[in-house]
Amino acid sequence: MRFTSEQRLDDTILEREFILGETLDEIPGILWTPGSASASAPTPLILLGHPPLGLRKMYPRLVGRARQAVADGFAAATIELPGSGDRPRLAAVDQARADLRRAMEAGEPVGDEIVDALVLPLVEQAVPEWRAALDALLALPGIGGPVGYSGGVISIGTRLAVVEPRVTAAVLFAGSLVPRAVFEEARQVTIPLHVLLQWDDEGNDRQAALDLFDAFGSKEKTLQANMGGHTGVPQFAGDDAARFLTRHLS
Amino acid sequence: MRFTSEQRLDDTILEREFILGETLDEIPGILWTPGSASASAPTPLILLGHPPLGLRKMYPRLVGRARQAVADGFAAATIELPGSGDRPRLAAVDQARADLRRAMEAGEPVGDEIVDALVLPLVEQAVPEWRAALDALLALPGIGGPVGYSGGVISIGTRLAVVEPRVTAAVLFAGSLVPRAVFEEARQVTIPLHVLLQWDDEGNDRQAALDLFDAFGSKEKTLQANMGGHTGVPQFAGDDAARFLTRHLS
Repeated sequence: MRFTSEQRLDDTILEREFILGETLDEIPGILWTPGSASASAPTPLILLGHPPLGLRKMYPRLVGRARQAVADGFAAATIELPGSGDRPRLAAVDQARADLRRAMEAGEPVGDEIVDALVLPLVEQAVPEWRAALDALLALPGIGGPVGYSGGVISIGTRLAVVEPRVTAAVLFAGSLVPRAVFEEARQVTIPLHVLLQWDDEGNDRQAALDLFDAFGSKEKTLQANMGGHTGVPQFAGDDAARFLTRHLS
Repeated sequence: MRFTSEQRLDDTILEREFILGETLDEIPGILWTPGSASASAPTPLILLGHPPLGLRKMYPRLVGRARQAVADGFAAATIELPGSGDRPRLAAVDQARADLRRAMEAGEPVGDEIVDALVLPLVEQAVPEWRAALDALLALPGIGGPVGYSGGVISIGTRLAVVEPRVTAAVLFAGSLVPRAVFEEARQVTIPLHVLLQWDDEGNDRQAALDLFDAFGSKEKTLQANMGGHTGVPQFAGDDAARFLTRHLS
């Protein structure tokens, strides 16, 4: 991992861009830490998930979430998803996205094979990358555990919650199509969860989101549903999610 | 309305029992107000709903909720439901409750007519009583609007939200059987709602609760579902509900 830029957003927050990996397929990422670099106790870390639209496009929303995380006493970090931003496209996922668009425009039901082709390759590749990022981030001075995961593609968050023991609490956003296999994985999740659902999310299947929430094996799990579409999560819902992470990571 | 007892729970909270009504069917109630009776601005009021198990039995949980309300800067009040505590029984409701128990023990589906007979007479009688209590409470010095309603029988809360313009926000508990007619009423509710659902509530129909949440006409409504049975609402969920009321009544 190497840092490629560094800027102070204000007195309280330091933003550093980094590159993960030494191979041809380098993975860009961003780390936000408290601005005062005093050597106090190591800061817990929140991994900021996001949809596969590219870090540049997602930056305004990510930096807002990062500011909240740092204000709450955490470091926050994110990496580019496979196939997004400047990273090489994933041909199979692009194909599935085209198939999805075609099916939706034709008013046809979206078949399992489209959902699988759209989401599973992303999960397969992204999860090891987020774990590698965790290795690198937790090796930095000033960043320690515990680690929370928040937002983004719910199938990635679910897999990460199952396979990555350093992630001890997760805020999941029920806002994307979910392959059947992920419902099975959900039963293996045991960490505390806070699941956000936008009740009128036009691109989301509400019943599938409720079924997925039901499937999670966690003893402590909360579903919070609010009005509005995909990007309309109200401020107070973000605050509640932040309080959940503070409760479990502090 | 006349006060029948008064005690300080500690330095910060004054508890007064009262009797509402001059008729044979007197209605007992309890009012909690900030302990320092200094004449500052009138305090907003939260009406504490509860299941029809009698105020005496519900007291420990009610006083806990009242302490939270007063700590948050509100007055809190509750009254005995028709047919509960020392009030005259409602024969039709008692009959419906026996029918319900019989149906459940026999593993039979609970018919609409049982649900209607169990809930509708309670709503019919209780809602005017809560409104009369509101008249009396808001006439007291130190208590002003706005008014919130919190908890108890969701069909009572729903009707109150429709017919009582002084109630401007409500926390509803999806924990009881809901007559078909109430789904229609729910569409007329427009005030902000925070609906609590215990996901594994053995005595509750989860799908009906989700359908009722969907039916509410409010532009701002939040569903928060948590794990556990009917009485297992976690502390943080109570805190979130209290923040909702603070947001809307302060």
